[in-house]
Amino acid sequence: MSGHATNLRLKLPAICFLLQLFTIILFAVFVRYDQETSARLWHEELSHHNKSNRDNDFYFRYPSFQDVHTMIFIGFGFLMTFLKRYGFGSVAFNFLIAAFAIQWSTLIQGFFHSFHDGKIHIGIESMINADFCSGAVLISFGAVLGKTSPIQLLLMALFEVTLFGINEYILLSVIGAKDAGGSMTIHTFGAYFGLMVSRVLYRPQLDKSRQREGSVYHSDLFAMIGTIYLWLFWPSFNSAITAHGDDQQRTVMNTYFSLAASTLATFAMSALINGEGKLDMVHIQNAALAGGVMVGTSGEMMLTPFGAMIAGFLAGLLSTLGFKFLTPILDFRLKIQDTCGVHNLHGMPGVLGALLGALVAALATQDVYGDGMADVFPLIADGSRTATYQGICQLFALLITLGFAVVGGSLVGAALKIRSLGSPPDTQCFNDQIYWEVNP
Amino acid sequence: MSGHATNLRLKLPAICFLLQLFTIILFAVFVRYDQETSARLWHEELSHHNKSNRDNDFYFRYPSFQDVHTMIFIGFGFLMTFLKRYGFGSVAFNFLIAAFAIQWSTLIQGFFHSFHDGKIHIGIESMINADFCSGAVLISFGAVLGKTSPIQLLLMALFEVTLFGINEYILLSVIGAKDAGGSMTIHTFGAYFGLMVSRVLYRPQLDKSRQREGSVYHSDLFAMIGTIYLWLFWPSFNSAITAHGDDQQRTVMNTYFSLAASTLATFAMSALINGEGKLDMVHIQNAALAGGVMVGTSGEMMLTPFGAMIAGFLAGLLSTLGFKFLTPILDFRLKIQDTCGVHNLHGMPGVLGALLGALVAALATQDVYGDGMADVFPLIADGSRTATYQGICQLFALLITLGFAVVGGSLVGAALKIRSLGSPPDTQCFNDQIYWEVNP
Amino acid sequence: MSGHATNLRLKLPAICFLLQLFTIILFAVFVRYDQETSARLWHEELSHHNKSNRDNDFYFRYPSFQDVHTMIFIGFGFLMTFLKRYGFGSVAFNFLIAAFAIQWSTLIQGFFHSFHDGKIHIGIESMINADFCSGAVLISFGAVLGKTSPIQLLLMALFEVTLFGINEYILLSVIGAKDAGGSMTIHTFGAYFGLMVSRVLYRPQLDKSRQREGSVYHSDLFAMIGTIYLWLFWPSFNSAITAHGDDQQRTVMNTYFSLAASTLATFAMSALINGEGKLDMVHIQNAALAGGVMVGTSGEMMLTPFGAMIAGFLAGLLSTLGFKFLTPILDFRLKIQDTCGVHNLHGMPGVLGALLGALVAALATQDVYGDGMADVFPLIADGSRTATYQGICQLFALLITLGFAVVGGSLVGAALKIRSLGSPPDTQCFNDQIYWEVNP
Repeated sequence: MSGHATNLRLKLPAICFLLQLFTIILFAVFVRYDQETSARLWHEELSHHNKSNRDNDFYFRYPSFQDVHTMIFIGFGFLMTFLKRYGFGSVAFNFLIAAFAIQWSTLIQGFFHSFHDGKIHIGIESMINADFCSGAVLISFGAVLGKTSPIQLLLMALFEVTLFGINEYILLSVIGAKDAGGSMTIHTFGAYFGLMVSRVLYRPQLDKSRQREGSVYHSDLFAMIGTIYLWLFWPSFNSAITAHGDDQQRTVMNTYFSLAASTLATFAMSALINGEGKLDMVHIQNAALAGGVMVGTSGEMMLTPFGAMIAGFLAGLLSTLGFKFLTPILDFRLKIQDTCGVHNLHGMPGVLGALLGALVAALATQDVYGDGMADVFPLIADGSRTATYQGICQLFALLITLGFAVVGGSLVGAALKIRSLGSPPDTQCFNDQIYWEVNP
Repeated sequence: MSGHATNLRLKLPAICFLLQLFTIILFAVFVRYDQETSARLWHEELSHHNKSNRDNDFYFRYPSFQDVHTMIFIGFGFLMTFLKRYGFGSVAFNFLIAAFAIQWSTLIQGFFHSFHDGKIHIGIESMINADFCSGAVLISFGAVLGKTSPIQLLLMALFEVTLFGINEYILLSVIGAKDAGGSMTIHTFGAYFGLMVSRVLYRPQLDKSRQREGSVYHSDLFAMIGTIYLWLFWPSFNSAITAHGDDQQRTVMNTYFSLAASTLATFAMSALINGEGKLDMVHIQNAALAGGVMVGTSGEMMLTPFGAMIAGFLAGLLSTLGFKFLTPILDFRLKIQDTCGVHNLHGMPGVLGALLGALVAALATQDVYGDGMADVFPLIADGSRTATYQGICQLFALLITLGFAVVGGSLVGAALKIRSLGSPPDTQCFNDQIYWEVNP
Repeated sequence: MSGHATNLRLKLPAICFLLQLFTIILFAVFVRYDQETSARLWHEELSHHNKSNRDNDFYFRYPSFQDVHTMIFIGFGFLMTFLKRYGFGSVAFNFLIAAFAIQWSTLIQGFFHSFHDGKIHIGIESMINADFCSGAVLISFGAVLGKTSPIQLLLMALFEVTLFGINEYILLSVIGAKDAGGSMTIHTFGAYFGLMVSRVLYRPQLDKSRQREGSVYHSDLFAMIGTIYLWLFWPSFNSAITAHGDDQQRTVMNTYFSLAASTLATFAMSALINGEGKLDMVHIQNAALAGGVMVGTSGEMMLTPFGAMIAGFLAGLLSTLGFKFLTPILDFRLKIQDTCGVHNLHGMPGVLGALLGALVAALATQDVYGDGMADVFPLIADGSRTATYQGICQLFALLITLGFAVVGGSLVGAALKIRSLGSPPDTQCFNDQIYWEVNP
């Protein structure tokens, strides 16, 4: 590839303008305020249904939304600044593709979930779901970080959001699986999709850029801003769209304890597997978060606090081991160059979290859930399926997700191989200077 | 100016003590807890008016308040750390002047808006408004960053907060204009006030410090912390004091989509206008936020999601163009040295936001707003003015704001020229070492 | 000590696994969801007590919880990154010990406060209290920062959390003292406990590491992230567990104004006491926060806004003076090496805050509090004690806290002297390389 091919002067404006204008037109045609957001409709609710402003879903979900929003833009963005010379690309391309993905996913998810009378009706919950969907894209971004142009990333977002929406619709609406925190829909899907893209875009000559693939002292501290914010707000992530009341509180608590346990497991394992008994910031930055992924499906269920701890503890252990033992195998055997190790943080814990969710669902009893069953497992509560069958549906949902991710990632990866998309040459990966004005 | 004049040993303590003690005395004489904050009064509300604790305004507004608070102290503070050797001054003087401004504006705004029976009564909404007012001061700070002493900044805050309060009172209470997110009262006022101060304090010899006016790699990353937090929480900023229910939710949504569209516009334009097709962090750090300023007035109105996107898209385009083409004109032709480019981020988008607000107000119909009209346009709802007249009032409000800002900024700038206020010499601008103990 | 003794390869995993597994077992035996977190129990509440989901305590406290959570993990963690080569240890050991402490304190506090029918029942309030307790441990961490191994820190957390729980139980449940923001239970206890540990672990040869005890330019900016977040969210900290309604709002307001005034006092005093009239980032990073500690006890009371300002102003002055004049005395006369100056930020302002709380309690009258007396001083409201007696109880609570902290810290410090706990040699204090893989 010639250096000239990475010049974004016309290509990036062209794709940004095109995507943005196309999105605006679709919004103009299809998207409307929902009944809690529209001045007229909400005031009709107030007067006809004896509601008060306090019942507006905004007050149940806005604090959680802002925590999720922070995770997407600060959490993911800064987590990836660990690379010594790719801080601009990490935080700013994260910003760009998430800003596009939240718009596009509002359309895609809207068509599947809130399309009535020819219009998509949106409110606070659709904003949370849009942020969730962009989270999946950012996970995939982690797998290809430093090796792709912003044009490739925008196209990846375009296709991935679309597939995400289809997969999510099948899981939640067709199969009736539960996955409030997205162990399957977000983490498993985003990770394996990204890993397949990375596989297809395999660079045999990446060694020419390896000297920039590490961190420096202060880039590791910037990355810790991302890590800690992800860790802090993960309880909000998993609970943001669960049912009001006990469900939100329980999901928060399960996630809180799962994360705490995965943190201790990560420190323990990091010291153990390193030849000199020293800790490694890569593990702390990533594996300590595996506890949040692990309870993404089961967090709203009656997992119990100690159950959450065991889950988080195992997730932290396995995720740290993954960085040590699996990442090299992926890289050298499977030809999957996973810059951020998303397989360890999102892929493996996502699959485990899906399996845990299936198990906990299969164990659900009326005795434990009481009238709360209707919120967590409506299809069990109304008698249309048994707990065991719910568990089987959860397993099936995992398989479908893996299928969509692997096939979708492969196809999209192939599309991104088109030469004119501004991909960096092998000698210029992980280097901000190729796309950014950088002061010395 | 001699170097000695910048020694703050006696001057800074003197002004801090004076301002703080004077403020405390005024608080002691005038400021009281309002009926939702006082133990006795709130419990009278509970028993006499059949209220519950849930109705306390605290629960409707505190999450938004904390987001605004984060924008003021983290957002503005870190955004300005982009300068290579002015990080301490950026984040810490931001801290100092905002800590004073929130106290002083509680008094000034209190006299105009909640003065009853000889006392100012304060609660969560006055805290939000105090933070808003300090936002205007921090915008002005951006125009004079690195060229002023903390003493000058405190005096600027003292006068600017006072004028802000008068202007806001005229706009909201006399004219009946709407401006919940402050396109006029905060952004237009703060920007043109600061630009006029900068004009009056023009330094023909500033070239002697230009070598410190740029960024280094990590200072740009610190600045991105500020940018992203401003971007994330701008929906809370615009909605923090709108009416409960649909108004808060709608304002959040409009701001969310406006910001997303302005981000894509900024990336597109940044690549386009740069000779080598590379992106410029200055644009990303600033122009991506213009969408939030742009819908400050109209965000609470029935702008529609696609209307918000169009607004944000244009704001991002124009703001980026401003950095490329207007900032040099301001600097070399108009003798306005605008360190942070506040004209591009706050000035121009503020004026455009005010015009958009006037337009959307003039288009308001009973059909679209229903009973919600009383919350957004109470004077239209009660029949005392037409939508067209409301639009004209909005335009008039913009003109008054520009007048207050330009005249006020000129006068305050003149007052800040007094030699003994510790201003740095032309050779020592943008340099922390002049006011700070700095380790090598 | 030999270099080998700091190798953590087996010791750190051993203690992490042991503590985590022991905690999980105790959780399995004792810890259950409370009635607002359990699916069955909350739905029984809903149907039997005519409640709505809106009454779930989650919606009153979760935003405050997340602010507190941010203070513990971002605030404390980054505040301590000011050291030039101890950023990893600061933010990551903070992470480790807080992740353990929140689990352990859930058990300890649960036994004392929510143990019914042989089980501990937990919900959002116990999560806030667990975070509070970990805050005390992190204050102590500040006193020994850079001079202790993670193994020592985990053991310190184990013992300190236990003593914290006993002291807190005596104060709140036996004596009936009030301390919602923890001037006594958290700040005084954490500071003097840590100072005594530091005293017992005194290193006469610490000069060998003094060249690493300072900051560099960017480490001071990282520390400001911690400072500003602590400052921003301190109103949430002090109000997180106060009664619903006016109490939460009033506590927020008092803390807000106290912090603003302590900020001006800090800047004033910093310029005044420095020979060259320059400001010192150490003061800004720490003393500006003293206003939050100062109103920890009295913040929920009818302190009045100007009373809060006077309190914060004095706290800022004294705390800054402490850094200049007391820290050297502690170091060279009392052999207390206080790395972060916790005596100035938490110790002294904590004691003053306790005294202020006693004074304001003693001045409580029915006229001022009305029916709100029952929320703030239930024992005065029900006639079982006078305001004066409440004030005396507050003083007594301070003495007990100091006793527990001094005796407990001494004993725990002695326990931590065991040679095999991986403590760094005198030449390797404040150095990340001893416990971390560090890229050059």
